[in-house]
Amino acid sequence: MDYYGSRMQALIEELSKLPGVGAKSAQRLAFHIIRMPEESVEKLTEAMTEARHSVCYCKRCCNLTDQELCPICSSPHRDGSQIMVVENPRDLAAYEKTGKYEGLYHVLHGAISPALGIGPSDIRLAELMQRLQKEDVHEVIIATNSSLEGETTAMYISKLIKPTGIRVSRIASGVPVGGDLEYIDEVTLLRALEGRVEL
Amino acid sequence: MDYYGSRMQALIEELSKLPGVGAKSAQRLAFHIIRMPEESVEKLTEAMTEARHSVCYCKRCCNLTDQELCPICSSPHRDGSQIMVVENPRDLAAYEKTGKYEGLYHVLHGAISPALGIGPSDIRLAELMQRLQKEDVHEVIIATNSSLEGETTAMYISKLIKPTGIRVSRIASGVPVGGDLEYIDEVTLLRALEGRVEL
Repeated sequence: MDYYGSRMQALIEELSKLPGVGAKSAQRLAFHIIRMPEESVEKLTEAMTEARHSVCYCKRCCNLTDQELCPICSSPHRDGSQIMVVENPRDLAAYEKTGKYEGLYHVLHGAISPALGIGPSDIRLAELMQRLQKEDVHEVIIATNSSLEGETTAMYISKLIKPTGIRVSRIASGVPVGGDLEYIDEVTLLRALEGRVEL
Repeated sequence: MDYYGSRMQALIEELSKLPGVGAKSAQRLAFHIIRMPEESVEKLTEAMTEARHSVCYCKRCCNLTDQELCPICSSPHRDGSQIMVVENPRDLAAYEKTGKYEGLYHVLHGAISPALGIGPSDIRLAELMQRLQKEDVHEVIIATNSSLEGETTAMYISKLIKPTGIRVSRIASGVPVGGDLEYIDEVTLLRALEGRVEL
């Protein structure tokens, strides 16, 4: 398998460890990389190293950030009285792309799944409950996926919050059952937001 | 577009410059990279940097290598009397995977294309002719693609080599093994008919 020498082999091997990168695309990427201007390779590797070192969770909403607060939490234009609960940062990005939601978020980094042994303490739920005590929140909008795990998580959270008197809602169906938020078009996402129902 | 802070944005941006990596896969790769063990990120970025710095063309056959000679040219088990001419290193790899070819290669890094303004001097043809003077070569097997450019290149090379008295051959074109006749284009079917062999 060593046609091009060990350095090229090593590069192809490391690239093929990335998700969605098979043997053929790893080879294709490697050919591209050795032909890139040295400056561009530097920019790419630096971006990787720096992101790996500095990206962490937002102290408030657990979104990804390289600061203490994420760009959304530190914006003065967002409405702190609404918190949208999502499973992961990609779902947050999906709602941000609609450009219509002005509240804050809370990123759980997962969903409750008895089958996979993921319980309420394995996701960022305690952090959400702490926020509800400290912040002046009027509504929690649960936007977990409409999968079994997402629905389970939504039910669990709504039961947890109800006693506090804070309004809890769930984004409407309109999101196809079994669908993954990040792949759904913006109109459907907005329709689901508008049609949210009280839990 | 800045949901996760500038470091994450920079990483997604750099990744999406890679060929075949769209916005969605760049995001997916970035999420993966920030969750990789720091050690693995280091291995990946080092492999990139080192390959970019050290991978060059083999002094003999113009294949990729990080040494003076590529693994094939420096192997004592290859038959130096045969040279297979290919357009690029991936084509060399394709023939190597058959495990049956024991001669050497010559990588042109392109094909003659009047339409794209690529002439004989833009590919590694002078290097091939120099080899034929210096090395004891009995046969040149032309394995350029069976596209217009590949055929043009094959014709050009064969005319160049013929006067030297060295045998020049072209890999056969015809119906791919396992191919279904009804789905194969007419040019290939005619080529297969012309190239028929006695049974």
